[in-house]
Amino acid sequence: MVYKKIDLVGTSTESFDDAVDDALDRAEETLDNVSWAEVVEQRVGIEGHDDRQYQVEVEVAFGLDD
Amino acid sequence: MVYKKIDLVGTSTESFDDAVDDALDRAEETLDNVSWAEVVEQRVGIEGHDDRQYQVEVEVAFGLDD
Amino acid sequence: MVYKKIDLVGTSTESFDDAVDDALDRAEETLDNVSWAEVVEQRVGIEGHDDRQYQVEVEVAFGLDD
Amino acid sequence: MVYKKIDLVGTSTESFDDAVDDALDRAEETLDNVSWAEVVEQRVGIEGHDDRQYQVEVEVAFGLDD
Amino acid sequence: MVYKKIDLVGTSTESFDDAVDDALDRAEETLDNVSWAEVVEQRVGIEGHDDRQYQVEVEVAFGLDD
Amino acid sequence: MVYKKIDLVGTSTESFDDAVDDALDRAEETLDNVSWAEVVEQRVGIEGHDDRQYQVEVEVAFGLDD
Amino acid sequence: MVYKKIDLVGTSTESFDDAVDDALDRAEETLDNVSWAEVVEQRVGIEGHDDRQYQVEVEVAFGLDD
Amino acid sequence: MVYKKIDLVGTSTESFDDAVDDALDRAEETLDNVSWAEVVEQRVGIEGHDDRQYQVEVEVAFGLDD
Amino acid sequence: MVYKKIDLVGTSTESFDDAVDDALDRAEETLDNVSWAEVVEQRVGIEGHDDRQYQVEVEVAFGLDD
Amino acid sequence: MVYKKIDLVGTSTESFDDAVDDALDRAEETLDNVSWAEVVEQRVGIEGHDDRQYQVEVEVAFGLDD
Amino acid sequence: MVYKKIDLVGTSTESFDDAVDDALDRAEETLDNVSWAEVVEQRVGIEGHDDRQYQVEVEVAFGLDD
Amino acid sequence: MVYKKIDLVGTSTESFDDAVDDALDRAEETLDNVSWAEVVEQRVGIEGHDDRQYQVEVEVAFGLDD
Repeated sequence: MVYKKIDLVGTSTESFDDAVDDALDRAEETLDNVSWAEVVEQRVGIEGHDDRQYQVEVEVAFGLDD
Repeated sequence: MVYKKIDLVGTSTESFDDAVDDALDRAEETLDNVSWAEVVEQRVGIEGHDDRQYQVEVEVAFGLDD
Repeated sequence: MVYKKIDLVGTSTESFDDAVDDALDRAEETLDNVSWAEVVEQRVGIEGHDDRQYQVEVEVAFGLDD
Repeated sequence: MVYKKIDLVGTSTESFDDAVDDALDRAEETLDNVSWAEVVEQRVGIEGHDDRQYQVEVEVAFGLDD
Repeated sequence: MVYKKIDLVGTSTESFDDAVDDALDRAEETLDNVSWAEVVEQRVGIEGHDDRQYQVEVEVAFGLDD
Repeated sequence: MVYKKIDLVGTSTESFDDAVDDALDRAEETLDNVSWAEVVEQRVGIEGHDDRQYQVEVEVAFGLDD
Repeated sequence: MVYKKIDLVGTSTESFDDAVDDALDRAEETLDNVSWAEVVEQRVGIEGHDDRQYQVEVEVAFGLDD
Repeated sequence: MVYKKIDLVGTSTESFDDAVDDALDRAEETLDNVSWAEVVEQRVGIEGHDDRQYQVEVEVAFGLDD
Repeated sequence: MVYKKIDLVGTSTESFDDAVDDALDRAEETLDNVSWAEVVEQRVGIEGHDDRQYQVEVEVAFGLDD
Repeated sequence: MVYKKIDLVGTSTESFDDAVDDALDRAEETLDNVSWAEVVEQRVGIEGHDDRQYQVEVEVAFGLDD
Repeated sequence: MVYKKIDLVGTSTESFDDAVDDALDRAEETLDNVSWAEVVEQRVGIEGHDDRQYQVEVEVAFGLDD
Repeated sequence: MVYKKIDLVGTSTESFDDAVDDALDRAEETLDNVSWAEVVEQRVGIEGHDDRQYQVEVEVAFGLDD
């Protein structure tokens, strides 16, 4: 089995956890066999945002069909 | 005083914070003088889990008795 | 535009997210043009604390007036 | 010439080298101009596997057509 | 909003800056909502090149449509 | 002699070198004894900018008077 | 479930793969629920060894009984 | 031969070197075949200490009996 | 409680330890609530110095008054 | 005793292990007292090679005569 | 083929690119088969320099004759 | 001016500082224009040594004659 990893940045005005789910939800909309994710970086966007925007970069791994 | 650090991975289907507490609770069951912890890595297990499993690796430091 | 980054450690007995807000709130009390923040490290203080103290080190960037 | 890098995890019950080839073989099935690869991480999966599964994460670079 | 990051290596016989633009130009040809880029690595290719080839690896982030 | 290091992000629509000078110029406006600088990170801002904005984070060291 | 990670260095005069197995075999002699391993470092010992000694440092994770 | 590495933090009000010896002395009290140590981090504790406390984190490797 | 960290480079012709104290002494001259310090880098200046100059970069953390 | 470390990249169309030996063999042709080696990076060259070329960068340490 | 990598720091009062060429030019004066270079660090020297001195550390790889 | 950096490991049964001087003394025996040094790693050799051997890896930079 070969897995592919893509790099997503989820965002949320609620929390870092919520930003992670934001990215995973988006991945699972278009990908099958999503297997695991790894947090790469956590930032907060302030300038240009009405509320603090929690931003989490995650690597999302999914199995490739043979 | 000499401290020892052990490496635990806590898990939770709730949140990353909850996964950290999971590891610290387990450490405090068996260790005295738990002093501090450092987050090393945050992952999410998906394949093989009914719900997303938040996984946090922490180094837990505790004082060694003389 | 030139930005300056300062290094703060927020603390909270609630959660890591709360510790981040603790640091950002303090920064916004004294600084204008706070633009973004980057999480550097997450620790938990235990020894000497009644409750676990979530500690998050963040780099806070703000725009310098010309 | 612009190159794109994708992130694959090859697996094998034989060896790490074999896991690298597993990923490169898969890449060369669908991509032209595969140019080089860089090993990022080497893990062994044990729980849930009959035999030890050697896992190697590689970044695979390929040239983009103009 | 969820962002995706892809990994490109731009090249130029002029300069590192020019190699960055090479990668960004290529990204903007095929992607909408390109938002930011981060320099990962800077190399110079010499063997097999008539002139020194400045090579810059950049992560390019773009917003995903909902 | 004790040196202090501050963290600045210079910006420019021209080039990375120009962004470095932007930060150093700003530092030398207000600081004496500026001694050296170290490049930490190079990014390009695109969304919300008419032209690509080259951004360079530098640590600037200056000698403290006794 | 909480996992613990220990740090072993396996050695072999055959190959790096063999050194990894050396460490995993030793871990599985005394530990239950060995789940995964991560390669940390690969060295070769020469001085004081009749043959080159391949040395691989691995972090071995195993599940803790409740 | 398989080696195990444990993570200790030695402390001293004298010097960093002394803090390293503090950790190694403690290790050699309870472990056979201590082979080498690697410095991971050097800190100074000030708040809550009468004198500055030099703290050195070391990984200590020792040979496991077959 | 929010802590701020500043980045100092202490110097000494005696030793690295002495250079650390040089930086901490300077910090404690002007700052209250100095809490801890972390060694970032150790260098030796030779060219332009009569004697070898031991240089240690430390991050110094101090508590901010509310 | 003072050791010097040099940086070699061994190559092989067979395996990573073989590429390490390629570098060590070359070092031992011209150097005395070769003591140990550390793997820095593992890459695979594909473009311009008939077969995949396994490339391993190693730091090779050898004792300097007094 | 075995490659050797040496570590040079090029300098220039013009630009970082120019400093890279400074190092590569010097390498090509005395070495055959210079194959590639990797940027390691970028600094600016200010104290003791009439003009800002751009300094770039590069690892330069060249093929060793058999 | 172009500088070259070489990688030495000094040793001493006295202290880390002494091990640094050991390496710098050796460098200055054979090299002109030694300019600065950077500590890379600090280890302690125990097995096979009568006394603990403090080992410090330093990168030593020296100016190349034109």
